[in-house]
Amino acid sequence: MKHGHFFTFEGIDGCGKSTQLIRVAKALKAEGMNCLVTREPGGAVISEKIREILISPENAGMCSETELLLYLAARAQHVRTIIKPAVDDGKIVLCDRFEQATFAYQGHGRGLDLGLLRSVNNFATGGLSPDITFIFDIPVELSIARLAESGKGKDRIESESPQFFENVRKGYLEAAAANPEKIKLLDGSKELDKLTEEILGTIFNTFVNVIL
Amino acid sequence: MKHGHFFTFEGIDGCGKSTQLIRVAKALKAEGMNCLVTREPGGAVISEKIREILISPENAGMCSETELLLYLAARAQHVRTIIKPAVDDGKIVLCDRFEQATFAYQGHGRGLDLGLLRSVNNFATGGLSPDITFIFDIPVELSIARLAESGKGKDRIESESPQFFENVRKGYLEAAAANPEKIKLLDGSKELDKLTEEILGTIFNTFVNVIL
Repeated sequence: MKHGHFFTFEGIDGCGKSTQLIRVAKALKAEGMNCLVTREPGGAVISEKIREILISPENAGMCSETELLLYLAARAQHVRTIIKPAVDDGKIVLCDRFEQATFAYQGHGRGLDLGLLRSVNNFATGGLSPDITFIFDIPVELSIARLAESGKGKDRIESESPQFFENVRKGYLEAAAANPEKIKLLDGSKELDKLTEEILGTIFNTFVNVIL
Repeated sequence: MKHGHFFTFEGIDGCGKSTQLIRVAKALKAEGMNCLVTREPGGAVISEKIREILISPENAGMCSETELLLYLAARAQHVRTIIKPAVDDGKIVLCDRFEQATFAYQGHGRGLDLGLLRSVNNFATGGLSPDITFIFDIPVELSIARLAESGKGKDRIESESPQFFENVRKGYLEAAAANPEKIKLLDGSKELDKLTEEILGTIFNTFVNVIL
């Protein structure tokens, strides 16, 4: 039986999802709520080892099929050993990227078949899906500018072409349009406090719906 | 267009498949044939990194779903960067374990759904399957005795229970019975020279069928 809650934060690099995730977690903790912050790919010991392979620029020759299966392997472990036990324990799990990243990056970005992606993702997650997914939308130019500004080196995925990220962004926008109940589209260029407030509002609303 | 040939060697640990693979490769090379010897999981740089995660006893907490997806990720890379290019180039590829190991270990051993395994495996291989699979059958007690004799430490999979290997062996036997044209069942306790001769006979027969 599911007792807790599961929220995911998605979008292209530099969209502000990780910043907002931390702000939201702090606000929830300040309200005395039991929060677990995690990320994909990673979040579990074995999944973090898989992450290393996925992001290392050394592995530039990785095929799309290999990439997909590695993301899903990391997710299978993460869901079963970290996310599901925490949700079953009544915690609020906040996860930086999840299944919508698979559909956007490997589906729309790499061009893999979305039907197949959904069925193999379902095998990986065992059917667990987020209560609400927040997608932070920004133009690709802003993503590139923010990444350059950060001064970090680019990982394997971040080294893709602007057209790749345009396709990924389009995938995220389509997902939000297709399922507005479960996927909330947010403007990632909005003022930070406003965004945090908007997300917290949606999260608290989910709790109210459960209580009523 | 496919020009070369692809043969796989399968069975539980200690069945003699790797010994026979080397003997067969030597014999084919002695005939002037262009042979490529490879193995799963592994065989490509990225796939060998995945292998590390799969076999390390450190990763004892790995879920069956994670394990399956990692094996298939390693295979997707191996097929596309090593096996298929070699077969297309007219080589004879000899591979130590392949898709029948997935059906036997993750299907019959771990109990994952065989239909799903087949469809995700097909995605990983892009439909490439061996000309002939050789399965070396031995009793589980002999496998355990040979492994103990070798003096090597056990990896994560080798540390499984005898019942697990009984199920895997049963899976291999069923696969051979279901598809005798493509899967040749061999007695792994037979005299080495006799086995090598039998395998070479089958391999040469495949060539003849192509020429006729």
